Amino acid sequence: MLELYVALMHYPVVNKNGDIIASAVTNLDLHDIARAAKTYGVKAFYVVTPLKDQQELVMKLLSHWTTGAGTNCNKVRGEALELAKISENLDEVITEITKQTGRAPKTVVTSAKKNMRNISFNSLRQNLKEGNPYLLLFGTAWGFSEQFISDADYVLSPIMADSDYNHLSVRSAVSVVLDRLKGDYRGSYAND
Amino acid sequence: MLELYVALMHYPVVNKNGDIIASAVTNLDLHDIARAAKTYGVKAFYVVTPLKDQQELVMKLLSHWTTGAGTNCNKVRGEALELAKISENLDEVITEITKQTGRAPKTVVTSAKKNMRNISFNSLRQNLKEGNPYLLLFGTAWGFSEQFISDADYVLSPIMADSDYNHLSVRSAVSVVLDRLKGDYRGSYAND
Repeated sequence: MLELYVALMHYPVVNKNGDIIASAVTNLDLHDIARAAKTYGVKAFYVVTPLKDQQELVMKLLSHWTTGAGTNCNKVRGEALELAKISENLDEVITEITKQTGRAPKTVVTSAKKNMRNISFNSLRQNLKEGNPYLLLFGTAWGFSEQFISDADYVLSPIMADSDYNHLSVRSAVSVVLDRLKGDYRGSYAND
Repeated sequence: MLELYVALMHYPVVNKNGDIIASAVTNLDLHDIARAAKTYGVKAFYVVTPLKDQQELVMKLLSHWTTGAGTNCNKVRGEALELAKISENLDEVITEITKQTGRAPKTVVTSAKKNMRNISFNSLRQNLKEGNPYLLLFGTAWGFSEQFISDADYVLSPIMADSDYNHLSVRSAVSVVLDRLKGDYRGSYAND
């Protein structure tokens, strides 16, 4: 039983100039990340923002698809968005997961930059098989501050590819990270 | 030298009822897919639509970021969107790639459904190393018609994951497919 959780953090993240800000929620982040989370068997997807008006906006969006008019229009969208929960901050997310699983999750921060403490995708994939809860943290805007990164239990390796350009959207990054950690390679490429 | 091309098809695709339609272009598709294409060393990203007003809209969006005001705001965004080209239909895309490379590209259709003709990610990854041009075709709306799929040279395996739910956004699907075909696993998970 894999216990993987995802949090999309809108605070504390940095802007283009490196200042710590609270970013605005993007509608398509919720849809794309919920769909990827559902596809890859993630237990819950936390949308984290301290801003009350943003929390209310997210609540409206989610209820449209999970209990409102959207359920008639596209049922599978609601099934994905049911995984999404609103949270005030990281501590609240950790507390909730701890309540549900009986164990505090290990936090795994993601970043496009290399870090001395990087854990490889393969190591984390192996760790997940032991059944302990892990919480993947994704940053919006220009990503996390150095302090936030150093506070996490693990720092996941950046996604390396066939170029010097490394500017995936957070929607793409979540999808690729989940595929590397939980994609089914049997019959697709690993053993073929 | 890998010669990989991506086309995002807005026609011919099907709607919820299976009727063949021309879908509308989504702004964030252009951004996310261009960024993924640039990250994974794709040669060009074709936005394919027969609708003139949609072609004009795409042209406006692209020029904002590649030559207009957007270049001052976010330079790396323009670097990615420079890969994007507008095209009328699949034949036009194939003709252009053939002109550029001197060889007609093999077309590889992607689909969330299994198909008798599925080629695995690993096989295609190996094929790419031979240096011939391949054109990955991604459908918008509810995906491609059976006829369109059967006309392609190859049909790529669906992305299998840890669930029965298989409804990734096209933005997520492009990112995961490119990562499986061109992601750098050395130091990340394959040999670790």
